Amino acid sequence: MKDIQNSKDERGIEIQNVGVKDVELPLTIQRKNKTDCEVWSKATASVSLPKDYKGTHMSRFIEVLTAWSNKNMLGVDIKQCLKEIIEKLDAKSGEIKFEFKYFIDKESPVSKLVSPMCYDCSFKGTYYNDEYKFYLGVKVPVTTLCPCSKEISENGAHNQRSIVSLNIHYDDDAHIWIEDLIKDIESCASSDVYSLLKRADEKFVTEHAYNNPKFVEDVLRDVIIKIKEKPEIRSYELFCESFESIHNHSAWAFQKEKIPKK
Amino acid sequence: MKDIQNSKDERGIEIQNVGVKDVELPLTIQRKNKTDCEVWSKATASVSLPKDYKGTHMSRFIEVLTAWSNKNMLGVDIKQCLKEIIEKLDAKSGEIKFEFKYFIDKESPVSKLVSPMCYDCSFKGTYYNDEYKFYLGVKVPVTTLCPCSKEISENGAHNQRSIVSLNIHYDDDAHIWIEDLIKDIESCASSDVYSLLKRADEKFVTEHAYNNPKFVEDVLRDVIIKIKEKPEIRSYELFCESFESIHNHSAWAFQKEKIPKK
Amino acid sequence: MKDIQNSKDERGIEIQNVGVKDVELPLTIQRKNKTDCEVWSKATASVSLPKDYKGTHMSRFIEVLTAWSNKNMLGVDIKQCLKEIIEKLDAKSGEIKFEFKYFIDKESPVSKLVSPMCYDCSFKGTYYNDEYKFYLGVKVPVTTLCPCSKEISENGAHNQRSIVSLNIHYDDDAHIWIEDLIKDIESCASSDVYSLLKRADEKFVTEHAYNNPKFVEDVLRDVIIKIKEKPEIRSYELFCESFESIHNHSAWAFQKEKIPKK
Amino acid sequence: MKDIQNSKDERGIEIQNVGVKDVELPLTIQRKNKTDCEVWSKATASVSLPKDYKGTHMSRFIEVLTAWSNKNMLGVDIKQCLKEIIEKLDAKSGEIKFEFKYFIDKESPVSKLVSPMCYDCSFKGTYYNDEYKFYLGVKVPVTTLCPCSKEISENGAHNQRSIVSLNIHYDDDAHIWIEDLIKDIESCASSDVYSLLKRADEKFVTEHAYNNPKFVEDVLRDVIIKIKEKPEIRSYELFCESFESIHNHSAWAFQKEKIPKK
Repeated sequence: MKDIQNSKDERGIEIQNVGVKDVELPLTIQRKNKTDCEVWSKATASVSLPKDYKGTHMSRFIEVLTAWSNKNMLGVDIKQCLKEIIEKLDAKSGEIKFEFKYFIDKESPVSKLVSPMCYDCSFKGTYYNDEYKFYLGVKVPVTTLCPCSKEISENGAHNQRSIVSLNIHYDDDAHIWIEDLIKDIESCASSDVYSLLKRADEKFVTEHAYNNPKFVEDVLRDVIIKIKEKPEIRSYELFCESFESIHNHSAWAFQKEKIPKK
Repeated sequence: MKDIQNSKDERGIEIQNVGVKDVELPLTIQRKNKTDCEVWSKATASVSLPKDYKGTHMSRFIEVLTAWSNKNMLGVDIKQCLKEIIEKLDAKSGEIKFEFKYFIDKESPVSKLVSPMCYDCSFKGTYYNDEYKFYLGVKVPVTTLCPCSKEISENGAHNQRSIVSLNIHYDDDAHIWIEDLIKDIESCASSDVYSLLKRADEKFVTEHAYNNPKFVEDVLRDVIIKIKEKPEIRSYELFCESFESIHNHSAWAFQKEKIPKK
Repeated sequence: MKDIQNSKDERGIEIQNVGVKDVELPLTIQRKNKTDCEVWSKATASVSLPKDYKGTHMSRFIEVLTAWSNKNMLGVDIKQCLKEIIEKLDAKSGEIKFEFKYFIDKESPVSKLVSPMCYDCSFKGTYYNDEYKFYLGVKVPVTTLCPCSKEISENGAHNQRSIVSLNIHYDDDAHIWIEDLIKDIESCASSDVYSLLKRADEKFVTEHAYNNPKFVEDVLRDVIIKIKEKPEIRSYELFCESFESIHNHSAWAFQKEKIPKK
Repeated sequence: MKDIQNSKDERGIEIQNVGVKDVELPLTIQRKNKTDCEVWSKATASVSLPKDYKGTHMSRFIEVLTAWSNKNMLGVDIKQCLKEIIEKLDAKSGEIKFEFKYFIDKESPVSKLVSPMCYDCSFKGTYYNDEYKFYLGVKVPVTTLCPCSKEISENGAHNQRSIVSLNIHYDDDAHIWIEDLIKDIESCASSDVYSLLKRADEKFVTEHAYNNPKFVEDVLRDVIIKIKEKPEIRSYELFCESFESIHNHSAWAFQKEKIPKK
């Protein structure tokens, strides 16, 4: 059978990224102080395509991903997977990203009851200009209570669910646990959110948030301070969004930064 | 050209609904105390298909919808549009639904500044068993403040954005304005939400919500009382969902009911 | 601490459904010819609330769900879980639904390569009028190739991805495997879809679809015939949607039916 | 009332972007060869925040947006709106984006019937380093028919709906019509998609796509060639995604480029 993808292209355009998107597959994740677990993930992968070729071979992405998924290799070790994709497709660069659902057992603050909380996380590996980089992403739901509303109102203060999305790139020889990164972020909000709260917990969470008012700007700045405490982080993108309880729109803040190695 | 759709089907199965979905088109809407306006809408339409026919003629839905959209006929008058679709497709029953974005100018409670609020609304017409019925739907964002959290906490109370979704069917000779239905629903929550709030408004809204705590169950019951005050309503479906600020999940309540004419 | 939820309500309105929604938690699933596996799921649960009570106790839903999730009880055995929720909340009726991501290894048609395909599935248990009912839901992506386009065109025929969504309720003493239900549905389309297809497979799939043209009406009717072959099915809801490749909207067909026991 | 936002911040962190997100409001759009029209839009706006200030004043964004919406100023003229936001908030940089639904009347290829097609479009203005830039975005649904599938199969070829997303930045003194940009993109696919197609049109569209097979890579390259023909374009981001009819995942290609002025 003729291989159309391999036919010569005359348009003279090298393509930066071509590949597959939203490929659902099981992924094995290393957990802090627990055995590894298998999670649902959605993969997006791409390579560069030289100007002389008409198309890439999409099925090879799936072949590598499937083989790699079958071997139960860890999500955090995607360097080899990406390398294999790039080799099989004879490309000079490429990237791969897994978005996945990750459960962490969480204890309520007073009754100490434990229930699972689910976090949207991601691993991304990129290979450009002969350099491999790894990125870890987490989306953390928290409570924010408005300092202005508290200050000007006789009683109460509006508060709401917010999502803090953080993507970090760190040194290859370092390791950062998802569990630790999430805990750091949660400590920067007016309060954590929980799956299971009994009445004593609800009292605690309500009062803790009231005593700890935060704008979306405050959460952003406090998370940045936490990031700067980790010397292995080389860059980050941080996005905080509050689904305002008094509006039908959101308040948001964003920061990105490269941090040179000292 | 052969008309495959018209060929005889031997499977003996009459189909209840077959048609088109998510057809975006402009729709003209009658506004209370304002001139008509054109809005973005998404139409879904279907007819029944007799057991002897292989398929319906999908393009005829679009022909009727386009002709009807061009004549700037009002969304609320979809009876004729549905009748025409049913005739053109030689069907015995059918239905049509428009989901649309609707702006209402809203005044902030203290500073009296006016800004547009957008509501997701819908018109639906159904024709089954020789009977036409019209349904009006609105989705109304509001604030709910938790009565339990207020009661047990020394200060503050968790609150959040909630969505109240109401679909009503009312007598053919009656008319209910979207504007009025939304106002009724908003009056049942801890507070309205607004696009534009200055500091004096924010103080008012915060304190009003604090003095007016409501469970999702309270909002549901209060909206039901409002519904029962309108003698022209023959049935409703009511769904309230609170995007809890202390959890990463929702609290919800649902009720549906037929109300016989007295 | 005062239990506000337990306070007396004077509005005289019994609520049909009140509960929690979109609670993410791990769920154990029984697989055909494989060991059980743990999947990501999203639970929605509700009970009825008598007219005399102001509110339900939302945290009890999470307590039961967490305990049940920790015991690795099977998703298909949700009868006890629902019973416990109803008892703990002193309700007369209730329901619970888990939506989950389910992987099945699938072999490509010619090269016989195996890769995982992910399906959106659901288990639902309801308890109304002293009767328990179980529902199984699957969403199956398939290819549909248009019979009209094939007939009237000299070459080719438009085809597209379609989703067949089927919910069935069957007798309590019967068991239907997800794997079997999906295979039945896939056999009713122009072709299956796959994660991994090499060129020989792509040739097969393309030609198979071309030789097997199906309207959305055809898929619906053929799935209904498959359903009727299973004497244990007591009711179904079937929805087929084609994301048309020549339009920016969908074609769809829907059928629901109760099937009395013979 | 105290202005908490204005209080001094000691953390020493200047924020790059802080503002409002998903504010729905009506927007006036200039159309090619037609009168202006009002569309539904969703605005996201932000400014920078100096390190000395605790927070921005979120309500001022809405004030400027509302005033500007009331004056029926054109979406394409957002320079003044952004300037006013930046001044009112005493910031040094900022940006604003409107995403909106835009209808264009489209003629079917053979029967010449006209019906509205809806496109997701966006206007974005940014002001960084004392320089204003304007970006126009369009998302265009098209058909792609697989060249490989056509070549290796005896009959037919798989095809599907694809979305081409293009964002361009062009010289301030130039103007590019949405209508023209969309037409250029549609000409690069295997076929346009349409709202209304009669049988003669369906035959044409099917055969045209079959005679015009395109990988996602081909569409990307052909759109790039079209972009390069416009000397006023200074940069672009181009994303093509095919919702494969034989898979449950997508194929995609991406390119971005700065084009220096000659």
